[in-house]
Amino acid sequence: MKIAISGKGGVGKTLLASLLSRIFVEDGYSVLAIDADPDANLAATLGFPHAEKITPISEMSALIEERTGARPGQAEIYFKLNPKVDDLPEKYCLEYNGIRLIVMGRIKKGGSGCYCPENVLLKALVSHLLLARDEVVILDMEAGIEHLGRATAKAVDKLIVVVEPGRRSVETAYRIGKLAQDIGLPNVAVVGNKLRSQSEREFLISSLPGFEFLGFIPYDQALVDADLANLPLVESSQQIITEVRNIYRVLLPITSGTKHNKLDKEHKW
Amino acid sequence: MKIAISGKGGVGKTLLASLLSRIFVEDGYSVLAIDADPDANLAATLGFPHAEKITPISEMSALIEERTGARPGQAEIYFKLNPKVDDLPEKYCLEYNGIRLIVMGRIKKGGSGCYCPENVLLKALVSHLLLARDEVVILDMEAGIEHLGRATAKAVDKLIVVVEPGRRSVETAYRIGKLAQDIGLPNVAVVGNKLRSQSEREFLISSLPGFEFLGFIPYDQALVDADLANLPLVESSQQIITEVRNIYRVLLPITSGTKHNKLDKEHKW
Repeated sequence: MKIAISGKGGVGKTLLASLLSRIFVEDGYSVLAIDADPDANLAATLGFPHAEKITPISEMSALIEERTGARPGQAEIYFKLNPKVDDLPEKYCLEYNGIRLIVMGRIKKGGSGCYCPENVLLKALVSHLLLARDEVVILDMEAGIEHLGRATAKAVDKLIVVVEPGRRSVETAYRIGKLAQDIGLPNVAVVGNKLRSQSEREFLISSLPGFEFLGFIPYDQALVDADLANLPLVESSQQIITEVRNIYRVLLPITSGTKHNKLDKEHKW
Repeated sequence: MKIAISGKGGVGKTLLASLLSRIFVEDGYSVLAIDADPDANLAATLGFPHAEKITPISEMSALIEERTGARPGQAEIYFKLNPKVDDLPEKYCLEYNGIRLIVMGRIKKGGSGCYCPENVLLKALVSHLLLARDEVVILDMEAGIEHLGRATAKAVDKLIVVVEPGRRSVETAYRIGKLAQDIGLPNVAVVGNKLRSQSEREFLISSLPGFEFLGFIPYDQALVDADLANLPLVESSQQIITEVRNIYRVLLPITSGTKHNKLDKEHKW
């Protein structure tokens, strides 16, 4: 099962990625979470100790040079476009509470004419994680799908676009839906977040008529308060956890036909 | 007066940029607003008609080729690193309610080893707008300061980092503060947004001890409701307007020593 999560900045992508990771692990799945959003901090939200000190792959200059033949920042013309990456997940993942995590760092966006060693390594690593690994992979992305391409699109079981009640996040959802279509990624669905009322829910449903909704997560001040008090976000709101569990149940049938490396643990649901 | 606005995705950068643009124009200044955040929509927030149909500079392939000598997406080795841009503001800005707007589009982030024609043109344009223009320039950026460099840092009168009550936005503020220091940009200040209580305000003050606070904008459901009803955001909340006017008054003395092209209009404040 491969899940990619995108949406406008601030809508709650990282919270959803964290809670889904926790629920899959609790249910006995082997989970690899990937932080591919430099503006977020999946490690901190998952409760990893010293999350701010983790070096992302994109900043490991020696590794990038070893694998691509070019040092980041140097104007090299030639470097390997298919660097070896299959050993990187084991070497560079961190583990906490049963969740394994890879922090990717900043990928450069934009036109296909812009290659650089960091991007080549990150893209090769994402391809490997989506195409060759058999655990549950949860990819926390930016407000786009720059990490994905035609070759990896088919491997994504669900691209979840998180939206909040607001026009800008709906516009971003349409833009992401269009990008997904362009690369041949058909499995796009939406999760509404920070909902305060029935009318906000209806706004989202009527604004996104072409989209499948996986669920609606309520706004809960308890989450904000837990954040300010530096308490674990993933445990702060029972009503949010309950709703993400519902989303998990909707996602689960997708795994039935795929390899997912489920461990021998009693099914809790 | 040159103001750059940054902060984590979703904190309210575009709203602050819009309201400040409006207030400067109302007060008789000539304002050029720059949308440099592809995940936002400054045009829509400012009420520009058909905002979704505006072509950003970064997607004007013919223009980029004309000015840099290289077509975006082509693997050209040589192109002009100092393209002519001084005529672009007049040619490609849009105007509505007295505010002139340039939509930049996506700039590529990351290491200095990655050049491409789009980036070269956008960076040259931002340099020109900051260094050679004499109106009030308000730059709405992403969660970073990729558009700025050592050459333009001195021209920014204030880099405003917007934060909301939440650890992630505070972490982003520290990261932006560090980037600003790296390029020699000393005038960094913070605006707190979406505040619901005195304790949230105290959280921000105690979390950012090294930062100057320009003001605190309250959370107002009226803003969300106006957005959902597709009403103009910049007019939706009187308490938010009042607080942004206070921030404007704090910013104003900065202009006294600089050229600002103020028109002959009665001072309203």
